[in-house]
Amino acid sequence: MTVTRFLTGITTSGTPHIGNYVGALRPALEASRRPGIENFYFLADYHALIKCDEPARVQRSTLEIAACWLAIGLDPEHVFFYRQSDIPEIPELTWLLTCVTGKGLLNRAHAYKAQVDKNNAAGVDADADVTAGLFMYPVLMAADILLFKAHKIPVGRDQVQHIEMARDMASSFNHLYGEHLVLPEAAIDDTVALLPGTDGRKMSKSYDNVIPLFAPREQMRKQIFAIVTDSRAPGEPKAVEGSALFQIYEAFASNEETAQLRKAYADGISWADAKQVLFERIDREIAPMRERYDALIADPQQIEQVLRRGADKARTRATPFMAELRAAVGLRNLASQASGARQKTAKAALPSFKQYREADGLHYFKFMDASGKLLAQSTGFASPQEAGRAVAQLKQGRRDGLEAALALAPGATDAEFTAALQALTNA
Amino acid sequence: MTVTRFLTGITTSGTPHIGNYVGALRPALEASRRPGIENFYFLADYHALIKCDEPARVQRSTLEIAACWLAIGLDPEHVFFYRQSDIPEIPELTWLLTCVTGKGLLNRAHAYKAQVDKNNAAGVDADADVTAGLFMYPVLMAADILLFKAHKIPVGRDQVQHIEMARDMASSFNHLYGEHLVLPEAAIDDTVALLPGTDGRKMSKSYDNVIPLFAPREQMRKQIFAIVTDSRAPGEPKAVEGSALFQIYEAFASNEETAQLRKAYADGISWADAKQVLFERIDREIAPMRERYDALIADPQQIEQVLRRGADKARTRATPFMAELRAAVGLRNLASQASGARQKTAKAALPSFKQYREADGLHYFKFMDASGKLLAQSTGFASPQEAGRAVAQLKQGRRDGLEAALALAPGATDAEFTAALQALTNA
Repeated sequence: MTVTRFLTGITTSGTPHIGNYVGALRPALEASRRPGIENFYFLADYHALIKCDEPARVQRSTLEIAACWLAIGLDPEHVFFYRQSDIPEIPELTWLLTCVTGKGLLNRAHAYKAQVDKNNAAGVDADADVTAGLFMYPVLMAADILLFKAHKIPVGRDQVQHIEMARDMASSFNHLYGEHLVLPEAAIDDTVALLPGTDGRKMSKSYDNVIPLFAPREQMRKQIFAIVTDSRAPGEPKAVEGSALFQIYEAFASNEETAQLRKAYADGISWADAKQVLFERIDREIAPMRERYDALIADPQQIEQVLRRGADKARTRATPFMAELRAAVGLRNLASQASGARQKTAKAALPSFKQYREADGLHYFKFMDASGKLLAQSTGFASPQEAGRAVAQLKQGRRDGLEAALALAPGATDAEFTAALQALTNA
Repeated sequence: MTVTRFLTGITTSGTPHIGNYVGALRPALEASRRPGIENFYFLADYHALIKCDEPARVQRSTLEIAACWLAIGLDPEHVFFYRQSDIPEIPELTWLLTCVTGKGLLNRAHAYKAQVDKNNAAGVDADADVTAGLFMYPVLMAADILLFKAHKIPVGRDQVQHIEMARDMASSFNHLYGEHLVLPEAAIDDTVALLPGTDGRKMSKSYDNVIPLFAPREQMRKQIFAIVTDSRAPGEPKAVEGSALFQIYEAFASNEETAQLRKAYADGISWADAKQVLFERIDREIAPMRERYDALIADPQQIEQVLRRGADKARTRATPFMAELRAAVGLRNLASQASGARQKTAKAALPSFKQYREADGLHYFKFMDASGKLLAQSTGFASPQEAGRAVAQLKQGRRDGLEAALALAPGATDAEFTAALQALTNA
């Protein structure tokens, strides 16, 4: 079965609001439960540094967004859930991609061009207030995606260009160094609601019109009651078109509930009552999550541990793949013999690991040489991550501490095992 | 005693020639033996990727330049000698600096501007053939320098701007996040000879006029005999001014020897004889190194091991410093309490390690809490690197495998030790 990989990152510079929940978190969570899919969710704290130079805010936002994912029900054992800055392969791949990316491509990025247009209109230097971070942001984003061979990136239409740029970078790399990188695609879900904020404009931190997802109950009530409405009196029929209140309700309610509120609008429900209906509907969905969220925020060490385990798991993919990419560009073990012919066939001719689960519920791996001959099998590990960590360590040529967890296969010799490990590290 | 740190990198995209030797390698080697100085020498293979997309050449050049340093007598135990791509903190710091660097600063880099001028003159797009790698090169170079708190960077005059840019980035970072980075200075040594090549122009790979440093003896002889001269016949007096042959001789010979050749020129030495004199003088210096070089090149695994040990040693500096920088920008353990006040005083109030050597010749460290109270002492390690590795691991909060190497100090408790480690990892 072919697995499709989805990847979603959230920049850790703010506090999640219900617009994020409806537009990104909730659909991502639903997607995480679909079969045949591997999901990667990460806290984009390197991205946060581009626009946020307040360390405490980056730290706090990372905590809040991590707690948020867990509170809404993301299962970190079932998906890849990690903090960007725990994956050193990401900045490294950023550099490799930087070297294959034409500067002209970056000149054309919308976010950069918007700032240049603004500067030109203001009559100041075109690059005034533009940091290299803003300019290089698409390269970091490409590294986030390409490192995990993600196929689909759920994004809004405003982010489609960045995915196309990641494709361009992957193509350039593959053209120069062989087919290593997977070309990603934007996954646009137009059924996902774009929530209006309390003032009727798009809900956005920059408009100061957001309803925080996990504010205390009374505060959420207050903010919902601050939603701007027209001045129709109780008893007067009200229009659902252009009603921010109605749109927000729709994003949380069932079709039946929505139809009921539509009827209530026509029947002249008062704005106060409509707001109370909205508040109760949102709170019904959010309240159990809020309780988990508050407990999580109170125990940051636990979240830290979840993230570190998540990083270990993500690096079982990132570390060996980065080793492949390093070899491709020439950052190699100096003792490896890289003739032109061997380079081309290296991928096919390497020893390999295979991870699997047995009926006993434990996780195993086996190790085959380049011809497919079985060399060794592992004892059972409690989790796929533990098995993955052992594999990752072996791929780096180190078997220290793993002696007890490995048994040579019948007919295989220790010398063959050692030679196969050496071949992997030399690759 | 205050230690001054010098840092020198060589891009691994070519084969070292006698111009590199006279202009960079030899003076750096001499500097490495001065007291009161810490020297950092690295193989700049990430830089090589900017201009070289031939993997085998990057690999080969890395091998050759590493062998070159060792053959001319660099003692890797006495200095920091490492391969750039073995230090994941370098691309990470590159990203942190990217976020504090104005794009306008990079627009003004000479190397980038030269390419733009060339494109404008050719009537093509200003950024034609400009990669993001060329554009971002000064940021990577700043990370190389700032990660090791280098004070002095020996460079040619054409590289001074890059050091100034590194200073600018360090200042921006310190302005935003506190005084963490050391502002480096260019160290220009005008007494260092710039060698002419065999055609009389500056010796440079791009002019195809180089004399390789470690070519086989007969090949070097041939290349020296190819040095362009004027057509004066044997017996005619010859001018030393503008004589590439004479300039190269001067770079290898003593004052006395130089005076002798000057006299021989005046006395009408034949060009063939002069070339033979030059060849013998160079070969006298190079021959013993060439022998070591050939042996080293034949054993790449040994060089690989030297570089890996060097990376371990360099990372005893890079890893804890990067942890400090990460905390400064907000990439923190989520459980760490970072009030504004604590942030400012965190540096002074942390537990600390001290490494030292005892009369028994072994290397030790001790661990003090924030108030300076001794908590633990290590057993002796055979090398400062091994002790450093143990310290680096403890700084990451992991004591696994180190139990036997640590003894609690009299009056210190295990709880105090654990709390101090925790304070370090939270910082």
